[in-house]
Amino acid sequence: MREVAIVGIGMNKWGELWDKDLRDVFVESAGAAIDDAGVDHIDSMYIGCMTSGLFNAQEHIGSLMADYLGVTPVPATRVESACASGGCAVRQAFIEVASGMSDIVLAGGVEKMTDVSGDGATFSLATAADQEWECYNGVTFPGLYAMMARAHMHKYGTKREHFAQVAVKNHANGFSNPHAQYHVKISVEDVLKSAKVAEPLNLFDCSPITDGAAAVILTTVEKAKALGKPIIKIIGTGQATASIALHSRDLTEIEATRYAAEKAYKMAGKGPDDIDLCEVHDCFTIAELVVMEELGFVERGKSGPAVEAGETNIGGRIPINTSGGLKSKGHPVGATGVAQIFALVEQLRGDAGERQVEGAKVALAQNMGGSGGSTVCTILEAVS
Amino acid sequence: MREVAIVGIGMNKWGELWDKDLRDVFVESAGAAIDDAGVDHIDSMYIGCMTSGLFNAQEHIGSLMADYLGVTPVPATRVESACASGGCAVRQAFIEVASGMSDIVLAGGVEKMTDVSGDGATFSLATAADQEWECYNGVTFPGLYAMMARAHMHKYGTKREHFAQVAVKNHANGFSNPHAQYHVKISVEDVLKSAKVAEPLNLFDCSPITDGAAAVILTTVEKAKALGKPIIKIIGTGQATASIALHSRDLTEIEATRYAAEKAYKMAGKGPDDIDLCEVHDCFTIAELVVMEELGFVERGKSGPAVEAGETNIGGRIPINTSGGLKSKGHPVGATGVAQIFALVEQLRGDAGERQVEGAKVALAQNMGGSGGSTVCTILEAVS
Repeated sequence: MREVAIVGIGMNKWGELWDKDLRDVFVESAGAAIDDAGVDHIDSMYIGCMTSGLFNAQEHIGSLMADYLGVTPVPATRVESACASGGCAVRQAFIEVASGMSDIVLAGGVEKMTDVSGDGATFSLATAADQEWECYNGVTFPGLYAMMARAHMHKYGTKREHFAQVAVKNHANGFSNPHAQYHVKISVEDVLKSAKVAEPLNLFDCSPITDGAAAVILTTVEKAKALGKPIIKIIGTGQATASIALHSRDLTEIEATRYAAEKAYKMAGKGPDDIDLCEVHDCFTIAELVVMEELGFVERGKSGPAVEAGETNIGGRIPINTSGGLKSKGHPVGATGVAQIFALVEQLRGDAGERQVEGAKVALAQNMGGSGGSTVCTILEAVS
Repeated sequence: MREVAIVGIGMNKWGELWDKDLRDVFVESAGAAIDDAGVDHIDSMYIGCMTSGLFNAQEHIGSLMADYLGVTPVPATRVESACASGGCAVRQAFIEVASGMSDIVLAGGVEKMTDVSGDGATFSLATAADQEWECYNGVTFPGLYAMMARAHMHKYGTKREHFAQVAVKNHANGFSNPHAQYHVKISVEDVLKSAKVAEPLNLFDCSPITDGAAAVILTTVEKAKALGKPIIKIIGTGQATASIALHSRDLTEIEATRYAAEKAYKMAGKGPDDIDLCEVHDCFTIAELVVMEELGFVERGKSGPAVEAGETNIGGRIPINTSGGLKSKGHPVGATGVAQIFALVEQLRGDAGERQVEGAKVALAQNMGGSGGSTVCTILEAVS
C-alpha cells in the first residue's frame, strides 16, 4: 500500500444556511479544498452524507456534486454510516489512493439539515437507530444518550456537572473557530439551566441541527512533496461496527470505538500516549466522556474527573475538540467526520491560531454513527 | 494492486416479499454468498442501497446488516449512487482487496421497496433525478426515459416494436431463472397492449418494484486458488459520472456509461469484441438499446435492428441480460448491480443451466444510476 497524505482542506461557515442549498455548501467546501491543495484535477471523489433522501429528497448526490463541482466524469460515490459517513469518506479515499487506483482523491461530507420536510429532523436522525426495535417504540437520540448518561452516573459516579463541563470547554474552543456555528461562551450554570431534553441531558448537552460541508484532498506522499505542501500523513485508519440497537450493548461502553481505535493504533504503531490532540464525536456531552475511555486516554469511569481537571483543555494533557466539537462547531451529520480531519490538519500545520496546540505532531479523529453502532478512527502525523 | 477474484455468490428469490424485512432479505443473500465461498470469516463489507431512508425509514444499514449477519465488529459501509449502488459496492470491495487492506470482502446490495411509506415508490425513486430542476417540475423516471425513447426514435428511426422486443427477450431469459421475480413469457403484442405509462413506454417496458438482495465475496486470486474455487477474476472496473439532470445531456446518449466502459475496457485490455455476454441496466427497454451503443456492441442507432435480428439472444452474437435483466428478474435498486455480477459468475462457472452461454469466458456488467448520471462497468474473466 502506498503512503497517503492530506494536501488540501476546505470548509464553509457552518450554521443555519437558509439562502444556500445542498449543492452550494458542498461545492463551496470542495472548491476550497481543491484550491488549498493546488491541484489541477481530481481522479475520484467520495461524499459522506447520512440522509439527503429524508432531508432534501435528493439521493444520487455523488454525481450531483461532481456535476456542480465541474469534475464529471470522475467517479463519485456517496458513502453512509449514519453520523460516521464523513469518516467513511476519508477512509475510502485513503484506500483508493493507497491501492494505486487513483492519485488524487477528494473526500467530502455534506448535510443540509434545515431543509428537512416530511417528519422533521428528529425523525430523519432517528433512522440511524434501529427503526423496528427502537424508533417504533418511541426512542429518539437524546433519549438513547440520556440512558447512557444515567448508566455512566450509576456505575462510575459521574456527575451531572461533568457533562456540562464538556459543553463549556467545547464552546470555549469553538469561540475562535471562524467555521463554527456558534461563537458563544457558556458556563456550567448555563448548561444546567437550559431546557430539559431527555433527563439528565439538557439542550446545551446536545449538538445542534446544522447545514454544512467539509472536504479534504488526499494524494500520495510523493505527490504531496512535489506540490510543496506540508506533509500530513494518514498513518492509521480503523473502522468497526456494533449493534445499532443500544439495548444489545453495554450502556456504558461504545465497543465499535474501542475496536476501531485498536485497529488504527496498530496500523499507526502508536498508542493513546502518542496522541497530541484529538477530535471526538460529542453529539451529546456524555458521548465525549465514554469515547475518551474507549480511546484509552483515561481509565474507565475516570473521564468526568479528567474533564473537570482540565486535562482535555487546550494546554492540557490531551486536548479534545479544539475545533469546538460537534457541540459548538455544529453537526451537519455527514460532514462532521471530514471536518474533524480539517481541524486536525489545521492543527498539524500549525495554522489553528488561538486554538493551536503547541508542538502537535500526531492527532486522532473519532467519528461515530448512531448511538455507537459504527466508528471510524483516523490517525494523522505531521512529517517535517 | 493485487489480482482479485470472486469466490462466492448468493441471492434470494426476488419479488414482493411481504413476509420479510430489509435485514431478512440481505442476510439470506449474504449468508448464501459466504457459504458458497466456503470462507470462515469476512474482513469487511460494502452494501449498495439507494434509499432505505425513504423506503424503510432506516439508514446506518452497514452496521445493521453486519449485526444481523453476525459479523460485527467488521467494517461495513453503505455506498450509494442511486440504481448503480450495487455496482459501487462491488467496485469498493475490489479496491479494498486490491489495495492489500483486506483479504476477504463481501459486496452486497439490498432494497426492500414494497415497504415504502411516505410519498410512495415513485417519489422515492425520483430522488435519483435532480430534485430541484426535474422532480419539482413533475418529472418522474418513466417520463425521463420516455423522452430518451422519443429522441432515439426521431434521430435513428428506432421503432416502437424494438423496445418491446427487449422486454420479450428478457422475459424469455428470466423464465428459467429461479431467482427472478417473474416467470412469464410475453409477446411483442403483450407489450404493445399493456397499460400506457409514459408515451411511448408501456407497463411492460418498465422494470418492476422489487424486494431483494444479492451478495458476492471477493478475495485475492491466490486465496481463491487455495479455496479450490473456480477463478473468476475482476479484470476491469470503470466508474463515471455525468449530470443527473437529463436536460443537461444529449437525450440519445448515456455518456457516463461510455466513459465507465472505456475505463473498464482499458484496464482489462479488452474491447467490445472480446465480451462473450453482458448484463446491462434495462430499467426501461430504451435503456438497454442506448447502453448497447455506448458499450460499443453496435453502431449508434443500430441497437433496435440488432435486437430484432436476435443478436442479443442467448446463442446470438452478444447475449444480453441472460438473467432476465431488470425487466424480468426484478429491480430492487441497490441490489441490481450485485445481482448482475451474480448472474455473470454463474455463467462463467458454467452453472447457468438452460440460460448458459456456451464457452463464455469474458463478461461485462453495466450498472447505471438515475437517467444515466452514473455508471459502473465491471469486466470479469474466467481463468482455467
